[in-house]
Amino acid sequence: MANPSEQETLVPSSDSVSFLRHRPNSAATASSKTSLTSDQNSATDCGEDSGVDRSFDAGMRNRGEAEEEMKAAAEDGVECREGVARDEGKGAGVALPASFLYRASAPAHWKVRESPLSSDEIFKQSHAGLFNLCIVVLIAVNGRLMIENLMKYGLLIRAGFWFSSRSMRDWPLLMCCLSLPAFPFGAFAVEKLAQHKFITEPLVIFLHVLLTTAAIIYPVFVILKFDSAVLSGFTLMFLASIVWLKLVSYAHTNYDIRTLSKTINKDDMCSSSIDLDNLKSVSLKSLVYFMVAPTLCYQPSYPRTTCIRKGWVIRQLIKCLLFTGLMGFMIEQYINPIVKNSQHPLKGNLLNAIERVLKLSVPTLYVWLCMFYCFFHLWLNILAELLRFGDREFYKDWWNAKTVEEYWRMWNMPVHKWVIRHIYSPCIRNGISKGFAVLISFFVSAVFHELCVAVPCHIFKFWAFIGIMFQIPLVILTKYLQNKFRNTMLNYLKPGQVGNMIFWIFFSILGQPMCVLLYYHDVMNRKARTD
Amino acid sequence: MANPSEQETLVPSSDSVSFLRHRPNSAATASSKTSLTSDQNSATDCGEDSGVDRSFDAGMRNRGEAEEEMKAAAEDGVECREGVARDEGKGAGVALPASFLYRASAPAHWKVRESPLSSDEIFKQSHAGLFNLCIVVLIAVNGRLMIENLMKYGLLIRAGFWFSSRSMRDWPLLMCCLSLPAFPFGAFAVEKLAQHKFITEPLVIFLHVLLTTAAIIYPVFVILKFDSAVLSGFTLMFLASIVWLKLVSYAHTNYDIRTLSKTINKDDMCSSSIDLDNLKSVSLKSLVYFMVAPTLCYQPSYPRTTCIRKGWVIRQLIKCLLFTGLMGFMIEQYINPIVKNSQHPLKGNLLNAIERVLKLSVPTLYVWLCMFYCFFHLWLNILAELLRFGDREFYKDWWNAKTVEEYWRMWNMPVHKWVIRHIYSPCIRNGISKGFAVLISFFVSAVFHELCVAVPCHIFKFWAFIGIMFQIPLVILTKYLQNKFRNTMLNYLKPGQVGNMIFWIFFSILGQPMCVLLYYHDVMNRKARTD
Repeated sequence: MANPSEQETLVPSSDSVSFLRHRPNSAATASSKTSLTSDQNSATDCGEDSGVDRSFDAGMRNRGEAEEEMKAAAEDGVECREGVARDEGKGAGVALPASFLYRASAPAHWKVRESPLSSDEIFKQSHAGLFNLCIVVLIAVNGRLMIENLMKYGLLIRAGFWFSSRSMRDWPLLMCCLSLPAFPFGAFAVEKLAQHKFITEPLVIFLHVLLTTAAIIYPVFVILKFDSAVLSGFTLMFLASIVWLKLVSYAHTNYDIRTLSKTINKDDMCSSSIDLDNLKSVSLKSLVYFMVAPTLCYQPSYPRTTCIRKGWVIRQLIKCLLFTGLMGFMIEQYINPIVKNSQHPLKGNLLNAIERVLKLSVPTLYVWLCMFYCFFHLWLNILAELLRFGDREFYKDWWNAKTVEEYWRMWNMPVHKWVIRHIYSPCIRNGISKGFAVLISFFVSAVFHELCVAVPCHIFKFWAFIGIMFQIPLVILTKYLQNKFRNTMLNYLKPGQVGNMIFWIFFSILGQPMCVLLYYHDVMNRKARTD
Repeated sequence: MANPSEQETLVPSSDSVSFLRHRPNSAATASSKTSLTSDQNSATDCGEDSGVDRSFDAGMRNRGEAEEEMKAAAEDGVECREGVARDEGKGAGVALPASFLYRASAPAHWKVRESPLSSDEIFKQSHAGLFNLCIVVLIAVNGRLMIENLMKYGLLIRAGFWFSSRSMRDWPLLMCCLSLPAFPFGAFAVEKLAQHKFITEPLVIFLHVLLTTAAIIYPVFVILKFDSAVLSGFTLMFLASIVWLKLVSYAHTNYDIRTLSKTINKDDMCSSSIDLDNLKSVSLKSLVYFMVAPTLCYQPSYPRTTCIRKGWVIRQLIKCLLFTGLMGFMIEQYINPIVKNSQHPLKGNLLNAIERVLKLSVPTLYVWLCMFYCFFHLWLNILAELLRFGDREFYKDWWNAKTVEEYWRMWNMPVHKWVIRHIYSPCIRNGISKGFAVLISFFVSAVFHELCVAVPCHIFKFWAFIGIMFQIPLVILTKYLQNKFRNTMLNYLKPGQVGNMIFWIFFSILGQPMCVLLYYHDVMNRKARTD
């Protein structure tokens, strides 16, 4: 061939045909495609950048068989056999001798093709391989850090953190803990009185307010008075908060049932389909069940399962123990040293602080995930199984949350349901705007987070409170970004990926380690002051 | 309600109906399902562990509407509004007053549900969120390591590594490099003579063998004699190997074309569809084009694109420079310090060696990926664009490779095509078994890897050779595991994931860092000896 010009694009096919009529149909497609390519380019957009690409795509779409054939060839690594074999099959009735197979003269390049990374198809392919790479690299990096940690510190298990000498001095907290059940009985008494109309509605409400307030103030008082250890203090506050939430739900629901029954008594058009004793029933049994059941929303009865799967319960218990142990190990081995070697994140060198936070973020994340699995999956399921409690939806798949709002809605269903039922809905009902209702909900949540953390630590710097209230701007931000990126979609991101990533960054990388460091250092400073 | 027994499972629905005929259809499904559940259990497998699960699943499958409704409710966070709103819509013609919305008395739990992690559906859901988590954690970990490195070493850019004082003394290598084109011309002369029948076939073969051998021996000799720097030596060996491969392809293809044309001349039944001058053409032009083109397989002509996209080429060039810079930076900043602080991996403390290898594995992986992108994607595409070379398939999506064999088949297409065409196929053609043909292919590959690495390093410990030959057991292993795990499939692994992970582990975590460490320390030891 004299000049490497346009018609050359046709040559390989004619070559391959002429040589040994090699791969006739693919050669045909190739030639037709290449010529197509050349036409399009020379005609429309030669010199323009995306020109060839586009025409390539045009080709790619309708080159099924050639592709398949190529793949098939690649399978057993023989480029040219396929074509010839096919020739043998249906090629002009000519039986080629075996020596014609595997010719070196068979062209290795017979059509215009793009590199995988140039074509847009790359974004449509699965990238399972890259996911695996991420996992493998994570394993490698974490494994290495574990070895480094082991060589640096050895094994660091001391019981002290879990059973300090102080926690012996915490019997008042235990007493307080044991006395908490008094409040539900009080609430029950109030309800009974209300039911038999011995006391007026306003008095009922007043008494309930009194009870609930006492139920949360009393433990706080005890903890602060007896200057308890952090862990036992936290446990007590945690239980007290649960009792508080349950009592509020109990009072609110019963109040609503009473009012409802009244209204129904009034308008007869409804009363047909109502059995009133169902509304009347304020049984001690149902209260007791509610107090122990893994839910915060009272209702006279719950969907139940029919039997307790003992083997299953035992398995879950074993898992629960194992993961709790793992959690403790991670805290002792990885989190403690990092935290000890850190300075206060808001004072001193910024770079250093960032380094500490990032280093801390990984173990805290793992501990958090363990904690979630142990408590929300294993423990609540065990409890539910033992009580034959039917509705096991204690969480949704929050790890796929597209916005921070979704996360708060999915990760802790008992509290979420409680908030919706006893804060958000009443707000809406009384004509408060959605946004403000959300604000109130987050405020309450923030107050309780602060109580549960600050009181046991004997520190009131409102880190937890701020942390929760900070979620509101985050909600708005992620929602905004979410919508923004849904419209102007990045090629390689499915919708919701951006929001999800932002959620993970704030949740695991910044949020938790920051809290840990802030509280740790304040607790330590306080210790230093008191001792 | 007196006793919490089976019929209680029906209560929530009747409750909800009776209260305010709340969410009638979902309540219906719920009750029917829960009763179904109880029947199944009490009848068949109460007490057996998977019993309730299975019946749950049975329920789960046919509860479309209720689910949707629940989701819809969850959407705007109001559990009970939906149902009531629906009541307003089609509920017995009764228009409920607005005060009936958002009741606290509306049950929060109205059907038996499983936790997401208990149900098998978890394996069918997408886990995009977890992938994002992996990425975020990787970013966090690497970011932290970068900060640590920065605080420890500062910036470590010295030109020395790239332009050592020695590389000035490497002019003989440059001369050698410039003299390499002599060999193709020699080969061309031989072909011309052969074409005009001036010399016999055996002599042609002998001359080609002579030329190709010279083309690889001469640079080796120069490098060893002038004791050159590693980098310039490697460059020369790399080019020499390419020339060798191209010459072999050239000779083999032309030989095959000659024999083919002879046979065709003999049997007339084929000669009809053949234009013989196409076989005859051994043009200098096509040889020159072949020598510069981004391929190792000679053919008289290639598929061509019609125009050079200048803007595109410039963009690719800029990318190429940026990534090369990044590569250099990573080597200087991250790989050098690690390697310098390491001992010989096969001597001294094992734990330490593992730690080093794992620490090294991450930057080497990134450098490798950069290298791949720069050379196989950017550079070869630039070259192809400038030469209007059509077939840009320089690699396939090897990152999804399911077995090591697939990887070697996909990641370097030019060499793969060459091996198939000039080693594997001839072996098969001459009746050698596939397995043995593969063995031979890997052997040749191993020899050249050894040459390209050992000669510039002036070290002949056959690490590279062993590394490549070690691939054969790996191929067998991964193939075996691949098949094993395809049959006994792990729930949460798509087919091919296992093989792919093993590939990544051997490829990125163990393979490369080991090679780097082995050669580095031998080079250093040698330096210590020579100086």
